[in-house]
Amino acid sequence: MPSPSSDERRPASQQGMRRQNLALVLGAIAEHGPLSRAEVSVRTGLTRAAVSSLVVALHKSGLVVELGPAPSGRVGRPGNALVLSSTGPAGLGLEVGVEHLAVCVADLSGEIRAQARVPAANRGRPADEVMAELGRIAEGVLAEAAGLGLRPVGAVVAVPGLIDAASGAVVHAANLGWRGQRLPESLLGLRLEAGNEANLGALAELWHSGPGGPADFVHVSAESGIGAALVVGGRLFQGARGFAGELGHVPVHPDGPACPCGARGCLEQYAGEGAVLAAAGLPEASGDWVALLAKHAAEGAAPVREALAQAGTALGTALAGAVNLVDPSAVVLGGAYAELGEWLLPRMRGELAARVTVRPWEPEALTVSKLGRRGPLLGAALVTVRRVLDNPGLDDPLPVESSGVS
Amino acid sequence: MPSPSSDERRPASQQGMRRQNLALVLGAIAEHGPLSRAEVSVRTGLTRAAVSSLVVALHKSGLVVELGPAPSGRVGRPGNALVLSSTGPAGLGLEVGVEHLAVCVADLSGEIRAQARVPAANRGRPADEVMAELGRIAEGVLAEAAGLGLRPVGAVVAVPGLIDAASGAVVHAANLGWRGQRLPESLLGLRLEAGNEANLGALAELWHSGPGGPADFVHVSAESGIGAALVVGGRLFQGARGFAGELGHVPVHPDGPACPCGARGCLEQYAGEGAVLAAAGLPEASGDWVALLAKHAAEGAAPVREALAQAGTALGTALAGAVNLVDPSAVVLGGAYAELGEWLLPRMRGELAARVTVRPWEPEALTVSKLGRRGPLLGAALVTVRRVLDNPGLDDPLPVESSGVS
Repeated sequence: MPSPSSDERRPASQQGMRRQNLALVLGAIAEHGPLSRAEVSVRTGLTRAAVSSLVVALHKSGLVVELGPAPSGRVGRPGNALVLSSTGPAGLGLEVGVEHLAVCVADLSGEIRAQARVPAANRGRPADEVMAELGRIAEGVLAEAAGLGLRPVGAVVAVPGLIDAASGAVVHAANLGWRGQRLPESLLGLRLEAGNEANLGALAELWHSGPGGPADFVHVSAESGIGAALVVGGRLFQGARGFAGELGHVPVHPDGPACPCGARGCLEQYAGEGAVLAAAGLPEASGDWVALLAKHAAEGAAPVREALAQAGTALGTALAGAVNLVDPSAVVLGGAYAELGEWLLPRMRGELAARVTVRPWEPEALTVSKLGRRGPLLGAALVTVRRVLDNPGLDDPLPVESSGVS
Repeated sequence: MPSPSSDERRPASQQGMRRQNLALVLGAIAEHGPLSRAEVSVRTGLTRAAVSSLVVALHKSGLVVELGPAPSGRVGRPGNALVLSSTGPAGLGLEVGVEHLAVCVADLSGEIRAQARVPAANRGRPADEVMAELGRIAEGVLAEAAGLGLRPVGAVVAVPGLIDAASGAVVHAANLGWRGQRLPESLLGLRLEAGNEANLGALAELWHSGPGGPADFVHVSAESGIGAALVVGGRLFQGARGFAGELGHVPVHPDGPACPCGARGCLEQYAGEGAVLAAAGLPEASGDWVALLAKHAAEGAAPVREALAQAGTALGTALAGAVNLVDPSAVVLGGAYAELGEWLLPRMRGELAARVTVRPWEPEALTVSKLGRRGPLLGAALVTVRRVLDNPGLDDPLPVESSGVS
């Protein structure tokens, strides 16, 4: 039986109680709004008087607004519906892809309200140059957001690499050629944090699907590199140092081809960009090679379909091990490979069915992300939004949990 | 960024604050006692007055006792040291092995104070017969504990099989031949819960190593079946339905030998009892075959050493995948195989070094459990002890977390 976490071991206080109750009220409005104060009271178990006092504070912080009297004709406060503000605090998300840069601003409801995406050849490009260009793009997006009354209070950048949970440094981003890279601590006056793109994609999937969606799943983020993220009990599972989810280097055939990581037979040697393009008889090329594979497969090209089927087998084998080990209730294929689901899924499902045998496993538990390659950028913006929602009683909600995205 | 768990979403209350602070004081005494009230105040951040009031309640519940005045000659309350009571509330642990039954009682400090272990041929034996015999053994152990002033308040039975986290039923225990087996809900008047032996062994390892030990590790529980348990942030990681840790059915060579589970090339086909005995040229036999292997290996029998080396390679390959996926800070070889560490570890270390390459990995991060095959029984008893320590303000601490051991 787990012992209390360090969080719970702090002495309880009146101030802590109020913060907790502010988050409780805001959470109810975020999940179920519009809600009247009476409905908030029912959903939270707090008295009407407590709810009214807490709503005043949330209103003052610009987090909640009233929609005005209900259309039934009744007037006065009891009928007024509370919703999250569509202006005020917001989250800035940024993304460094191997071949693009992207920026967006999400409001408290998680809606993307301003965004930009530009092609960029980032392979081997110095990090400071990349971050400078990203800053210029962000300036435009922030100006657009300001015009909408949105004020981002934090920035998170999605990076295709390992992020050290303690320091926030990029330990290794193979496809960018970054190693031990410390990114700037702020960008345009906002605190900046780096997050692993697979983790952020999984968080986007979690938050986008809402409270009714799966809370325990493995999210496979496949493209040139193959990563995964584990979501457990509605939280990102990060591992001891923030490196959890390196599915791409799980051994599939221990004596298989050498991998640049130094090992043999890693999943990336069967289902990564180079392996799939080679098996399909296509040259490695810049540009949108995932879209290219999808196009050829849709047109019926047999070598492309067979290459994708083989990749599906390898993905399914590695995932079967992951399912046996971490017992998720679902597996989600996300990232760019979500667009190849039609050709990857049958073999993935077959391997999972054949190898996950000591517990129940339904083929439908493997699904394709609706967010696909949009996930990491959206997740990056939502990290800040969720922090604001979870810590409404703090002037500066950001330092409370500082390492949740690496 | 993770959103608050459902626990944190309950309205905060005065009663909850007091319970939390009782646990805080009791935890400080458990980890660092003997402590004076002044020392408890320093460690917890609570005022002296609050500590005194809380200590009165803990004393009344029989959880804490005073050692009397310090030997320095000073008298009176301030110098009196508080320790956990060595009588009163305790935990009853039970174990169903394939070839033995065992029972023990642990006091609040986690010391085993009474125990019994008997050989028993449980393979294929009906569960009710097994549980009846276990009850008879427990009666004697409980009588011995009562003579010491110990009063177990809950019972947990370690079972070598999958336990459904929601219902507590044994979904499948291959080596016992149990499937969908619901165990009695109480035993000798105590609430009874079933727990997976690998999980309980890992919890024993966690609690036995104390607050300074690793809080994030993979615990491999190898014997006839091979299981694992993941401990994350000082808590057992159970997966969506309590089935996490099935390392034995992670594919090692996807096209390898058929496994009774229905898949091919599972770890158990390379490192389980049958595989190792066959590779060593020894007949499958009842009795302590692990001790037999250790004896032959110590005497220098080459086929036995080579069989264990091969098992070590397979264990290392499967664990490399696990490390890449869940990023533990350590891997602990526990269960009966801990006694074979000398012959298993070199190859295990080699595979981990070769395959865990995208992050730092030290060979010393793989260790051998000191508890070994004693782990599951001790863990079973400690579950109840930890619940009492974590919930000192409740008359009945047991229902608070009901599924932590499956």
